[in-house]
Amino acid sequence: MDIYGERINAARDLMRRQSFDYLLIGPSANMYYFSGLNTSPDERLQLLIIPASAEKHPAALLPEMYLQKAKEVIASTYSLHAWPDNADPFAMAGDLIGNNGRMRILIDDTMRSDHLIGLGKALGEAEFEPASLVVSSLRAYKDNSEVELMREAGRAADRVMEKVREEVKPGMSESELSLLIEIEYRQQADDISFKPIVASGPHAAQPHHSTGSRRFEVGDLIVVDCGALYRGYCSDITRTFCLGKADPEMKKVYSVVQEANAAAFRALEERGSLSGEELDAAARLVITEAGYGQYFIHRTGHGIGLEVHEEPYIVEGNREPLRQGNAFTIEPGIYLPGRFGVRIEDVAVITGAGPERLTSYERGLIEL
Amino acid sequence: MDIYGERINAARDLMRRQSFDYLLIGPSANMYYFSGLNTSPDERLQLLIIPASAEKHPAALLPEMYLQKAKEVIASTYSLHAWPDNADPFAMAGDLIGNNGRMRILIDDTMRSDHLIGLGKALGEAEFEPASLVVSSLRAYKDNSEVELMREAGRAADRVMEKVREEVKPGMSESELSLLIEIEYRQQADDISFKPIVASGPHAAQPHHSTGSRRFEVGDLIVVDCGALYRGYCSDITRTFCLGKADPEMKKVYSVVQEANAAAFRALEERGSLSGEELDAAARLVITEAGYGQYFIHRTGHGIGLEVHEEPYIVEGNREPLRQGNAFTIEPGIYLPGRFGVRIEDVAVITGAGPERLTSYERGLIEL
Repeated sequence: MDIYGERINAARDLMRRQSFDYLLIGPSANMYYFSGLNTSPDERLQLLIIPASAEKHPAALLPEMYLQKAKEVIASTYSLHAWPDNADPFAMAGDLIGNNGRMRILIDDTMRSDHLIGLGKALGEAEFEPASLVVSSLRAYKDNSEVELMREAGRAADRVMEKVREEVKPGMSESELSLLIEIEYRQQADDISFKPIVASGPHAAQPHHSTGSRRFEVGDLIVVDCGALYRGYCSDITRTFCLGKADPEMKKVYSVVQEANAAAFRALEERGSLSGEELDAAARLVITEAGYGQYFIHRTGHGIGLEVHEEPYIVEGNREPLRQGNAFTIEPGIYLPGRFGVRIEDVAVITGAGPERLTSYERGLIEL
Repeated sequence: MDIYGERINAARDLMRRQSFDYLLIGPSANMYYFSGLNTSPDERLQLLIIPASAEKHPAALLPEMYLQKAKEVIASTYSLHAWPDNADPFAMAGDLIGNNGRMRILIDDTMRSDHLIGLGKALGEAEFEPASLVVSSLRAYKDNSEVELMREAGRAADRVMEKVREEVKPGMSESELSLLIEIEYRQQADDISFKPIVASGPHAAQPHHSTGSRRFEVGDLIVVDCGALYRGYCSDITRTFCLGKADPEMKKVYSVVQEANAAAFRALEERGSLSGEELDAAARLVITEAGYGQYFIHRTGHGIGLEVHEEPYIVEGNREPLRQGNAFTIEPGIYLPGRFGVRIEDVAVITGAGPERLTSYERGLIEL
């Protein structure tokens, strides 16, 4: 049995324990995880149908135009069913699944709502829950081969940060730097894992600023948040550079964020078992005690793997202990509206030998 | 009232006529259409809440980290509600909407299913339908200012095709050409509208081939499918180049596809009113009569605007007449499995003066 068969069986075990009948997967990281098939989502229904019962065969329902590729990639694991553009794919999905009253069905978390609504009509009384109830715990455990790919993705991110340091200069725009980062990731890895965030000057006070046309000025803090995609796996790193000399408050804020990043890693290393919420608190405490608590307006981190955001989340309310195989970011930040922002982010993974940082680029303040 | 207020009111009229109570929009082209807000979707709930009743104010529920940007962009139209990372956004959405029994609610088509499931639990008895029931007819009509932006996006695509013609050579890989195309679109417009498809040799027989590492060889047909994003609006063009001399069957297939593309445009120009299905048939007839009908394995086209795929679809079953303001692609293709493929795609818009092509790059066979 190949890796996809093993993953399907692991999901089936959990589905039966939680009394789910089917797992329905759209074009997503989950599709790649369970089949190796990597396609883009759009308005056409693409569906993997995984029955909980080991006596039923997994099936794939795909637009006719994807059939040839599917035959090459997944035909050994899934029975293939193609729908032409003039057909109703939801009726075909209903026929393949069978409408057996109040089934409990897991739906891929990122599946488009119009597809869920269409499936809901085809399946009558079915009850839907997010696939993450079963899939997240599988995907949150990275085996050694996955960790090795994530190490490579992390090293690529470190190399790109060095390139950023070399290239940033006054007059360059956010979008120019973003493009340069994208090109560099194509050389250092397969692709970017998400659109780079380049936020300069007052823009840096927005954690998810949309990179724009603003040009860098001397005195700016520049938040650069980006990551590699390498053989399906993501990395994610943020560094905050200063163009010219940082003023005293920038230095103060920077050192608080750097200490929060370090404190979270120390907590991971020093405490045997720690929940996502406790790790969040370890970083947050440093920022709160320095008087900036109200300006740390997001969670401390998120799991990472085939998706750049996945479980486990490092956030208040997540009381699950972090475990071997978990990979996640630690990314405290302080954002002063209209003024500036600082974030320092690394990826960590918990291996059999303890916590390991997958991104290691210089964390001290760099004045360019 | 600004453009967003006008669009909200137009949607409200349609909602009341169809007895819908609320329109719920996630981060998507619809969010941009109704608010000007442009953010990336992820696991955090971002929601515009548009009540059908003009007496209720539209609201936005956003992660706290997006609040600053939202204040700048949408605060004049929407009341703003921020949720911190440790809160339950679905409970907050339920409170904002109010749980009034069997409401009929329109859900953004591309909203993540886990968000729809969360909203469904918060809203108890509500019944959900895709937002496209109301929004598609609004977005499918492009006004003059939108058409002008789409013309610019089309011109950028033409310029990029010229660059492709200059740069393609034996030994270059699909992904190298794809990167070059992306960089060129950043210079010619704002961005790409979708990841370019570069499919060479036997890969060209897959309409949505995932651009890979295959290197071009003399004798390849190379399908290049790409488009610009310009101030929110998309273009989409496909040309098929031949590296070296085309063999007789390639020439035959190419000329059939070119004639199918031309026949569809002639049908648009010559027939007063035409449905999506009739336009599909006009292109398909040429290919079927030439004996390649079974190898034209997708619809003739799709609407285009803020999204690269939207209504109206040029497909069997769409009996709606195409109308002034509609913009859509015409993209017949022939795909011979394991051998080669040809597709020729342009964008058309129906203006007050009749149909107009928005992409015009050379359509005859180009042997490089």
